[in-house]
Amino acid sequence: MHNIDKLFESVAEKGYVCIGLDTAAEYVPPLERQRAASNADAVFEFNRALIDSTLDIAACYKVQIAYYEEMGMAGLSAYAKTLQYIRKKGALVIGDIKRGDIADTALRYARAHFAGEFEADFVTLSPYMGMDSIEPWFEYASSDSSGGSKGAFVLMRTSNKGMRDFEYLETLPCNKRLYNRVGDKLSELAAKKAGTYGYGIFGAVVGCTERDEAAEIRRAYTNLFFLIPGYGAQGGAADDAALLLRDGNGGVVNASRSILKAWSAELKNTDADESKVTNIFAAEAARRAALAMRDAIRTAVGYREQGTGSREQGAGNLE
Amino acid sequence: MHNIDKLFESVAEKGYVCIGLDTAAEYVPPLERQRAASNADAVFEFNRALIDSTLDIAACYKVQIAYYEEMGMAGLSAYAKTLQYIRKKGALVIGDIKRGDIADTALRYARAHFAGEFEADFVTLSPYMGMDSIEPWFEYASSDSSGGSKGAFVLMRTSNKGMRDFEYLETLPCNKRLYNRVGDKLSELAAKKAGTYGYGIFGAVVGCTERDEAAEIRRAYTNLFFLIPGYGAQGGAADDAALLLRDGNGGVVNASRSILKAWSAELKNTDADESKVTNIFAAEAARRAALAMRDAIRTAVGYREQGTGSREQGAGNLE
Repeated sequence: MHNIDKLFESVAEKGYVCIGLDTAAEYVPPLERQRAASNADAVFEFNRALIDSTLDIAACYKVQIAYYEEMGMAGLSAYAKTLQYIRKKGALVIGDIKRGDIADTALRYARAHFAGEFEADFVTLSPYMGMDSIEPWFEYASSDSSGGSKGAFVLMRTSNKGMRDFEYLETLPCNKRLYNRVGDKLSELAAKKAGTYGYGIFGAVVGCTERDEAAEIRRAYTNLFFLIPGYGAQGGAADDAALLLRDGNGGVVNASRSILKAWSAELKNTDADESKVTNIFAAEAARRAALAMRDAIRTAVGYREQGTGSREQGAGNLE
Repeated sequence: MHNIDKLFESVAEKGYVCIGLDTAAEYVPPLERQRAASNADAVFEFNRALIDSTLDIAACYKVQIAYYEEMGMAGLSAYAKTLQYIRKKGALVIGDIKRGDIADTALRYARAHFAGEFEADFVTLSPYMGMDSIEPWFEYASSDSSGGSKGAFVLMRTSNKGMRDFEYLETLPCNKRLYNRVGDKLSELAAKKAGTYGYGIFGAVVGCTERDEAAEIRRAYTNLFFLIPGYGAQGGAADDAALLLRDGNGGVVNASRSILKAWSAELKNTDADESKVTNIFAAEAARRAALAMRDAIRTAVGYREQGTGSREQGAGNLE
């Protein structure tokens, strides 16, 4: 089964939450950081506790490699171990690496991140250089020699302020925005190779910070599965994320800091002593935050479906 | 002194060649590969021989991290060792990592690649997500806490076939191509912080494969130093590269395979036995290839300056 189908089924079973393990050492409780042999070890042990406590409610995990690269070789080892641990537990993991380079180089990257120590189930890619920086991954991902089930999410419309610099530029001849031009190309690619549930094996990154365009983007790209950042800390709410979903599926919503630092947020309402917080407490707090997020999005999706009849509309779009 | 000034002076002294250490294990002579403890060690030893033989004729080196990531942790260790070796020798190195991510994450990446084990003098960046994915590097690069002399080259108009997918899209309101919109933003940024010789501390990646637009791009962005890929294997010639230079400086021209595999190309014209080739021979062949390239570009630049009087024109553009 292709990973995009596994992800679809995971969303159906567990909900929409993609837990972003953008784990900085300073997010780890002080006690656990002191106990660990190094910051990189502290981060891995923290990740492991969080993974163990959320396996049944996380659709997938996303690991942002920058937070690990910052710690050098030891950090990259923690990155590799985190991916290996998630995969060993039977869960899906997205390597958030945003690579984008020419054909030969893209193949090297694909070998690095679709096999070996850094093997992920999905990666994130950047489209600036054009589709020949994306397609080599696609070929690799759909060939049997590589396992054949890999997927990717390509940056389309992100959730940062700077997205308006280039992604929003209107382009000739049809005045479509750059992000739509990227979406169109991805949709063409998805039409060539899709999973059982109609989604292309490569999806798109679409942030949930811009409510006005969400429904339009969802309608325009029915065959793209979305990786949706921007929830929580960046301002996106459950209602916004729900607009990017389709028939109760078709996307995962990422949250990082609000889940990783849930232990710290919970402490603020108590007189508990921060220095006594363990990874077990942090992992339980993370689970509570992820559950609240899952249920908020489920409610928003349910409300929208009842309110607008979009389930029927969505089904009509499915070919 | 800022790295962009060091690079300017290095070009004036040594010529235009940026040696691209995109070193795959299969580029290393078979004998040396057998001798090495691992592919990653073979790559590092090969790099070291090439660096030693070209220090006086290479303006700088560029190390493409994908070729190292492909070899996992051991490969990344070879990447780190290669960068450290180049810097220890007093030469400049560009970490070709093409990162592009939102603000917090960009800072983590900056710490990873402007300090610590992976420290480079310059990095390459991708602009898709907008200037808030570039500016954090800029701040970091111009602050004293980080060494303060770091630079970057941002993808503008690349040299691959797929560049036409998005980089060439004409955008509203002024019908400028996307790559010009990126160039305009980089030029604004360069105006805020430039080195002694008038070039912004962040430059642009502009391929030398498209002769028609080269002179126009050079004229439009007098304050941007160019990292110029596409020479040799990708079809760019010395004449094309010369059009992207300015007053005999303002850019470095990258070549990778034509230099790394010069030993193999030289063998083709002889009855020599490939199995006896050493790194010393490979490094000498690389030096010959780099020298030929340097002299071809020097000739092309000289010819252009005499032929069109562009030296005076260029000087007129300098504010």
